This record gives sequence, structure tokens and C-alpha cells, in this order.
Amino acid sequence: MSDILVLSEEQLRERIHLNPAMIDVIEKAFATLAEGGVVMPPVMSMHMPDVNGELDVKTAYVPGLPGFAVKLSPGFFDNPSKGLPSTSGLMVVLSAETGRVRAVLLDNGYLTDLRTAAAGGVAARHLSREDSRHAAIFGAGLQARLQLQALAMVRPIEEAVIWARDPAKAEALAREMDGEGLHCRAVADAEEAAGFADVIVTTTPASRPILKSEWLRPGQHVTAMGSDQAGKNELDPLCLDRADLYVADRVSQTELMGELRAAIGAGLFSDRSGIPELGGIVTGRHPGRTGSDQITIADLTGTGVQDTAIAMHVLAAFSE
Amino acid sequence: MSDILVLSEEQLRERIHLNPAMIDVIEKAFATLAEGGVVMPPVMSMHMPDVNGELDVKTAYVPGLPGFAVKLSPGFFDNPSKGLPSTSGLMVVLSAETGRVRAVLLDNGYLTDLRTAAAGGVAARHLSREDSRHAAIFGAGLQARLQLQALAMVRPIEEAVIWARDPAKAEALAREMDGEGLHCRAVADAEEAAGFADVIVTTTPASRPILKSEWLRPGQHVTAMGSDQAGKNELDPLCLDRADLYVADRVSQTELMGELRAAIGAGLFSDRSGIPELGGIVTGRHPGRTGSDQITIADLTGTGVQDTAIAMHVLAAFSE
Repeated sequence: MSDILVLSEEQLRERIHLNPAMIDVIEKAFATLAEGGVVMPPVMSMHMPDVNGELDVKTAYVPGLPGFAVKLSPGFFDNPSKGLPSTSGLMVVLSAETGRVRAVLLDNGYLTDLRTAAAGGVAARHLSREDSRHAAIFGAGLQARLQLQALAMVRPIEEAVIWARDPAKAEALAREMDGEGLHCRAVADAEEAAGFADVIVTTTPASRPILKSEWLRPGQHVTAMGSDQAGKNELDPLCLDRADLYVADRVSQTELMGELRAAIGAGLFSDRSGIPELGGIVTGRHPGRTGSDQITIADLTGTGVQDTAIAMHVLAAFSE
Repeated sequence: MSDILVLSEEQLRERIHLNPAMIDVIEKAFATLAEGGVVMPPVMSMHMPDVNGELDVKTAYVPGLPGFAVKLSPGFFDNPSKGLPSTSGLMVVLSAETGRVRAVLLDNGYLTDLRTAAAGGVAARHLSREDSRHAAIFGAGLQARLQLQALAMVRPIEEAVIWARDPAKAEALAREMDGEGLHCRAVADAEEAAGFADVIVTTTPASRPILKSEWLRPGQHVTAMGSDQAGKNELDPLCLDRADLYVADRVSQTELMGELRAAIGAGLFSDRSGIPELGGIVTGRHPGRTGSDQITIADLTGTGVQDTAIAMHVLAAFSE
């Protein structure tokens, strides 16, 4: 067992943080995904209705990396009443040469939080206007905080507004984030929040749209990252119709569990062959934003290649 | 991390062994599968052709058990040239109440070996004649040994023959097993081996049939457990046609990666609605062997419910 690295959540939280280097790591992962050779099977999902729980398993093999991760993400939605977070889980890292277990990262979802936020940073870096100074965050949970931090690492954000269904939570997050290199305030009106921003990030578990297409204005970029399963939907489908550029992290996933799913349901995107993926934008195979008046949308559902990338980043950090 | 049990292969090999109690545990797992409420998603498979590797992920939620296992089974087929076994892997046990990680069993496939052999014991207990005294094992690997041991735990086996493609390996295994409560010898002719036996167990990775239908005789039981992916095939499809009773561990799996797949390919079993599963036999929902002249076949591909069952058996053993 001595050659298997087992890391606790505490050890990971102490050493691994969201930073520009991590955004680079995730950006490179998307580039590799676009360049081919990556093997990423469909997400394995198991629903356990009698305990109000679910389990998702994701993995991806990335040629050239010395290992690959398999991530177990349980969500047990009665946990909050027991004083526990809904989500937890771990990543197992296997050798890409022998398949043998190299590491067990008992992160309880911490690394997923980071790689998800980092993907938001990648999307903003390639799709938002370079001079984006105003941000609007929809939602007031952990991803609201992390997405704003990632955004501020790639764009010169000066002021941010927080909108959430629960105004008290928006206020609390705004107070927490205010002064961390930017001004931050809560706003009670979602339309006002949207109108204020150069970059909008939606981070909610909404099942009905919280962002309307008529609120969008030229030059804005929207990253929607709250939807990660069928049944969730943050963007009015007409947003995707109005956008000059819609980008999926992985079309085969967004059509099943991202914003694209609802748009297809509304009769849009009957031909999906030309939809660009984030990796294609990163590598320049597909143009990103080509004008300051364009509306762009990134639809992020989370990919196994991000998990493999951050797990290898962790192994490198702990072998230094 | 202190509440997460991490067990090494050495610890598991020292404490956990194939025995009649384990066969009971696996039998109960199949019964639960038949009784409903079990959630068992399709196997997640990832093929990594450029490193000649594959990964299978299996899981099953079994109502009433305090946890469920997720098993990672890598197979890297260039490993033997590096002095390593092809297969390895681990099981992660999650709480069925909260989804939180309870245990990491770094077994390198040891528990899979045991639960696979135990399923063979269950099949023989319910499908072979009670007075089965002669066994034929096809193959000379680890499962050949374990399947013979499991069989001898449920039937009064007095003599066994081993046939393998490589006669030297058959000889070696026969020498090893001889005297362990039974007489054991290698035979060079597969037809002779089949003709000798009351119970035949095929344990090979054959991709073309090694057991012919014309070799079968009334009263025999055959357990085929070598096929666990499309492309493997141990039984001449006509064996299934000749059998009075064909039983799958899970029809949805055997039709994709068991002996049933080849039989379907040969035009048999166009209607699969009536095929019994092992759990249905165990619970008596479907009759098993009803006469001493019947030919019965069990087709075992391995199920997530066996993994969850043996993992919980391990946790119970280590909490004693």
C-alpha cells in the first residue's frame, strides 16, 4: 500500500487552491480534448430514489498524461437535514501505463469545485470581452464565489453584483466578496443584475430559466454552469438563439444535461453538427469572439477530462 | 480521514477467504436482485487502445444494506511483459444513507476473484445434480482453481479433471489441486474432460467455443464464467439450444457480453423475455433443475450486486 498516495480533504484544502495556474491546467485539458485521442465515456449515473440519492461516475483517458482519474460524485439530498453537505465523493488515480492505483484523493468534491470554477475562467478568457469590468453572478452558493474569483483572475473585474432567489444569501455573499480586489453588492432584481454586467455567470440549480433573452445586450458573455443534469435549466432557450456564438464544453453532454437540452426542446439547434466546443475555441480550430458587440454563451456541464487534469495537477503538487 | 477504512490487498488476503459463508452472501445478493429495488446501472467501459488497456466500472445499490460499492477494474494487457498481472483495481464503499466514503478496499481484484467464484458456487448449488461427484474445469488460471474450490463446497466432488489449451498449465494446476479433498488430474482432450463430468465450469478468455454441444450428456450442468465482454465466447451456441434450462446472472448483461450474445448471433433466443436469472432461481420464482436428466447452463458475466455484497461482507468482517 506504501506506493499508493491517499490524501484527505484537509490535506487537499491546505495545498491546492484556485489560481491562474489551475485555470491553465484546465485550459490545456480542453485543448487536449479538442486535439483528439481523449477517451471519455458517457457519465455513469445511478439514482437511488428511496434514499433520495444519486451517484455520478466520470472518467477520461488523456494521452500523454501519466495517469487518469475516475471520479465518484454522490449527491444525497437529505444530508443537509443531517448537518452534512449534499455532495461528497473522491477521485481515484490510475496509472495510464499499468492501470494500477496510484492515488486516492478523498476530496469530498473539493477538486470538482475547483476544476468547475477553473472551466468558467477558461470560458471567460476566450469568450468575454478583454475589457470586461462588470460581472453579475446568479446564485449565492460556493460556485458563485469561486466563479467570481476565477473570472477576476482572467478579466479586470472592478465591480460585481450578486443576484439570488434568496436575497439574504446574496447579501451575505456580496459582503464576503466585497473588497477582495473588487466592489461587490447584492441586487434584488435579476434584470438589473443582467443589465449591469459584461460577464454573467449563472450558478444555480434552477429548473426554470432565471435569465431572459430580452435582458441580454450586445457585448455580453454568459457562462451557464448550474445545469449538470436533465431537468435543470438556467437560460431562457431564446438566449441561445439570440447569441452570436454558443459554445458547449462537450456537445454530447450539453444536449443531454446542459442548457442546450432545453433549447433543443424549444425546437432550436435541430442541426448540432456545427456547434463548437470549448476545446476547439481554445486551440483556435473554431473562432471565439470576433467582435465587441457579440453575445457569447458558454454551456458547462463538467467533463471527465477536467477531473483527470486536476487530479494529475494534485499529484504533481504533492510530489514536489 | 480517520473514519474512512482503507484496507490493503495484504490485509484483505489475510482476513477474507472463499468459504461457504461467502457463497451464502453472494446467493443472498442474487436473491435481492430478483426481489426488486436493486439499482444496477450498465457497466461503464473505457477502452484505451494506445496503451492496450481498458477500465470497467460496476456498481449496485441494494436496498437494506448500509452501503454500496463502486468497483474499478482496470485490465492492462501489456502488464505481464512488465512482470505485473493484467488486472488490478479497487472498490470504494459509500454509505447508503449519506453517500459519504466509508471504505477504500485496495484489493487489486482479489475480491472480484472471490465473488466470481462464489457465484459459480451459487449456480452449482441450484442447478447441478445434488449427487454431482465429477467435475471438469476448462482453463488453468486463478478462476479454474477458485471455481473448483467453490464447487467442492456445495457438491460432494470426488474427482476433477482439468483441460487447458496449454497442457503444462493444466498439469500444474491438477498437481496443485490433487489431494485437497479430491482427486485431480489433467486431461489433454477437451471432449474427454466434458464427457467425464457432472459439472463443467469454463473459465477461459476464449473468443471461439471450447465446449461443443455434441459433447454434452443428460444430467450435466455447465457454468460458463469466462466471457465478460463482447468478443469472448466459450460455449458453442448450440449448447444453449440443447440445454433444458439456460440461466443468466443478468440477461441485460449476458446478451451483450456473455454466452447468450453468441447464441443470439447464431439466431437463437430471438425472444428473451422468458429467460430466468440466477436470482429468480435462488428465490424459487423460477424452477431450477427439475429432473436428473436435464442439461442446465449458467452464464455468469459478473454483476455489481456481487461487488456490493462482498464489500459489505468485508466491512462486517473488519468491524468484528
